[in-house]
Amino acid sequence: MDDTRAIISNDLAVGDADSRVAVGPMHRLVARPLPLNTFRENVIVLARDSTALRPERLAGVRKVEVRAKGRSLLASPMICDDPAVVGPGEAGLPQPAFRRLGVQPGDIVEVAPARTPRTIDALRAKIAGEALSAAEYAAIAADLGAHRWSDMEIAAFLVACASFMTPDETLSLCRGMVAAGGRLTWPRDLVVDKHCIGGIPGNRTSLIVTPIVAAHGLLMPKTSSRAITSPAGTADTMEVLARVDLDEAEMRAVVAACGGCIVWGGRVDLSPADDVLISVERPLGVDTPEQMVASILSKKVAAGSTHLVLDVPVGPSAKVRDRRAALRLRKLFEYVAGQLGLTIDVLLTDGRQPIGRGVGPVLEARDAMAVLRNSADAPADLREKAVMLAGCLIEQDPGLPGGTGEQRARELLESGAAARKMDEIIAAQGPSPISGQVGALAQEVTASAAGVVTAIDCLRIATVARLAGAPTDPGAGLDLMARIGDRVEAGQPLYRIHGSEPSDFAFAVEAAGEFNGMVVAP
Amino acid sequence: MDDTRAIISNDLAVGDADSRVAVGPMHRLVARPLPLNTFRENVIVLARDSTALRPERLAGVRKVEVRAKGRSLLASPMICDDPAVVGPGEAGLPQPAFRRLGVQPGDIVEVAPARTPRTIDALRAKIAGEALSAAEYAAIAADLGAHRWSDMEIAAFLVACASFMTPDETLSLCRGMVAAGGRLTWPRDLVVDKHCIGGIPGNRTSLIVTPIVAAHGLLMPKTSSRAITSPAGTADTMEVLARVDLDEAEMRAVVAACGGCIVWGGRVDLSPADDVLISVERPLGVDTPEQMVASILSKKVAAGSTHLVLDVPVGPSAKVRDRRAALRLRKLFEYVAGQLGLTIDVLLTDGRQPIGRGVGPVLEARDAMAVLRNSADAPADLREKAVMLAGCLIEQDPGLPGGTGEQRARELLESGAAARKMDEIIAAQGPSPISGQVGALAQEVTASAAGVVTAIDCLRIATVARLAGAPTDPGAGLDLMARIGDRVEAGQPLYRIHGSEPSDFAFAVEAAGEFNGMVVAP
Repeated sequence: MDDTRAIISNDLAVGDADSRVAVGPMHRLVARPLPLNTFRENVIVLARDSTALRPERLAGVRKVEVRAKGRSLLASPMICDDPAVVGPGEAGLPQPAFRRLGVQPGDIVEVAPARTPRTIDALRAKIAGEALSAAEYAAIAADLGAHRWSDMEIAAFLVACASFMTPDETLSLCRGMVAAGGRLTWPRDLVVDKHCIGGIPGNRTSLIVTPIVAAHGLLMPKTSSRAITSPAGTADTMEVLARVDLDEAEMRAVVAACGGCIVWGGRVDLSPADDVLISVERPLGVDTPEQMVASILSKKVAAGSTHLVLDVPVGPSAKVRDRRAALRLRKLFEYVAGQLGLTIDVLLTDGRQPIGRGVGPVLEARDAMAVLRNSADAPADLREKAVMLAGCLIEQDPGLPGGTGEQRARELLESGAAARKMDEIIAAQGPSPISGQVGALAQEVTASAAGVVTAIDCLRIATVARLAGAPTDPGAGLDLMARIGDRVEAGQPLYRIHGSEPSDFAFAVEAAGEFNGMVVAP
Repeated sequence: MDDTRAIISNDLAVGDADSRVAVGPMHRLVARPLPLNTFRENVIVLARDSTALRPERLAGVRKVEVRAKGRSLLASPMICDDPAVVGPGEAGLPQPAFRRLGVQPGDIVEVAPARTPRTIDALRAKIAGEALSAAEYAAIAADLGAHRWSDMEIAAFLVACASFMTPDETLSLCRGMVAAGGRLTWPRDLVVDKHCIGGIPGNRTSLIVTPIVAAHGLLMPKTSSRAITSPAGTADTMEVLARVDLDEAEMRAVVAACGGCIVWGGRVDLSPADDVLISVERPLGVDTPEQMVASILSKKVAAGSTHLVLDVPVGPSAKVRDRRAALRLRKLFEYVAGQLGLTIDVLLTDGRQPIGRGVGPVLEARDAMAVLRNSADAPADLREKAVMLAGCLIEQDPGLPGGTGEQRARELLESGAAARKMDEIIAAQGPSPISGQVGALAQEVTASAAGVVTAIDCLRIATVARLAGAPTDPGAGLDLMARIGDRVEAGQPLYRIHGSEPSDFAFAVEAAGEFNGMVVAP
């Protein structure tokens, strides 16, 4: 098999505008898929006696550049001692590197030790406390989106930004993130969206607001995320009702038919740099106003939104703890959105406790559908908040008299128009691939003494729901049976834990036994 | 093979004092070595249909805890789709995880998704700008040394510390790092050492100071590092002359026989947390006074030193750029060393240009031996600096009249006693495993116009030497032929580049053509 012979190609790749910079000549190897999945990380496996790169040169190398068919990525090198697994003329490529390169087994790939991307100089300047330029942020976002930075570099960037970042830097980062990915355009001047910064269990208003606003006739193509640290994301909850992993063409077809959609944004390639930053931000617990603003607004601008209502819950266990922090965050959102030409309404809402009763995909979907169907037992707090948010968006309609948005939203809900629109959207997106059953294991958590519920710890409620299995197990979670201000007797249930996997369920029950998240004062 | 069946063990491992915290029950698998080397990173490969952990649970898991025979480590999970590579009841363990666990093929290992180590709470507090306690630093250093933090967490820690760290925190980190590894003790009250903070090419004084001081009769068991970003470390240079990868017992035997040694510290497990921090610090370019002090002093205290002379070169392209920064660094070294009971002399030295003529392991070893042998062409700057440093250490000898240390050092050098001691040490450490030949490829870099050398860029000199192949290729590097203040004619050689690998050599020549690092003013 002569083709497997590595050939030193002639081009001395010393750099190009994209900062894909190999050190020394590229070497040609034959791509061989390996039956390994390395999750997020790109890995390339080379033989110990590789014709391309000697292991002693790789020990000090952080990344290997791999090129094929005009694509380029950086992969972490590993050495293989078994020529039956990876031969001297081969490049072993586990997933996701194999998929990202778009090669076929036997295709030629070119490899070389990667020089540190030039944007790392900007990272070092940021670590040293400097403000970076718009051009530097554009280059950084491009490198992030192309997976050219390592996790350690991303972490260093986030922590350096957390210590010092100007509003203009936030704007530049946001602009760079938009430019680094795809951007949707819509055939309307007014494209509305609604977003919550998160942190409050339940609070699944998007599933109600979207059909109300679409029923009014405004365009609301909603892309949403899956849960990362919470018990359910909007995409997880919508998935209980309909398919959500639509690609761009499918999403456009739904929006053309219904005037709105509620899909997972993961297949639409909006602000990929944001996804990369989030993947490091979350495990580190870095959650600064600057990153939040750049992240949310980059996704919204890339999604083609022109008007955004932003829900900022404020409460002692919410992401934003007090009014002062909330006002500071609002100013930053308003400044950056304004510079980007996005109209924004930042609403500071009550974030002292969960909204609705269910926590977890199936239980939250149940609440949202109860509101849409005007059921007698629908949670009133969820209904009122959704009507208020939908009203703010409808208010943007120039054809409507000022101040009548909320009234119009309520009419669309109570008349059943919103419920019919939701049924349309669900039918257009297609049937859900998952079960909508509530987890069969159930256990009530009760008050140990009589009193009044004076506080609810949102973080603890979310933790117990996640331990029970949400969102991986969509039927797992909590059903809340008490709210702030309620009088409870000793032994009265505060909430019910649901689950289906015994060991997860046992963990959740044990955690609730230690601290159930509700403060009952005599 | 019934043994390969995974068994859910009974212990619900929810935590222990060591912060080795698995989520949920441990699962038993059979260890299977994989012919892969993942370099620094621990990796565990599980089958897609593993009896222990389902891939959908692993996608959100940062690390898997692996336990065997009382050892525990955290490994990044990968999924294997080929049961012939890793079976459902097996744990595939590439190097270094397999070696670190100390298992044999077929041994039982226990695995479970790892909860985030508790020290990550302290990391988050540090990111938020808080000062951490001594207990927190002790726990952090222990987790670092045990490879329980990911690169992203280490990077976040370093950048957060770079933005704010008190002298007491530096002391606490240093103490924690000492405690997290082994510690050498010696049967003498006075154990001396010499260290340079680095940044100046050449400057290989340790190879001269150690035999002088040992010849005087003081105990100087020198452990040194290999180059990470420089063209040569003391260990790389000594390796040209003798074996350096001695274990603790071998090192003790050499010290008992000769009163001194010059070995690589990598096999002696001193301050392993420091090695972990450095592995992230270097690629990020984080080089703060606090990390430098904690790093150097933790290694010295762990090595059992009681008296340290520290060489701090100051110059425009050195690590320390000016006198003000140097004085600040000196204070921090003095404070932390004082608290640790280590006597320290911090010497601010001339760091405007390289010391000696050779840059690269073979060329630097040649210079050091020329000084020891009192050759007529030995570099005078290297000799004088080594005599001064050795004098400072000998001055610690209570049996010697004050102020006579340097004179005694010079006598020991000029009499040949130091050279004989060096020969003894070389013989005791054993023969060098590498060739001491200077690279056969050579090219002179010349002055483009007549003038006086007014500045030498140490960073550039180091970069050209590294591009030529140093230290991986020990015979590669530079031979300097001009110093600051020298008059040169147009076409007169400034230095000679040596190498043996044609493409590396071509890169070094090309880089020197762009900027050779020497400023010649008319």
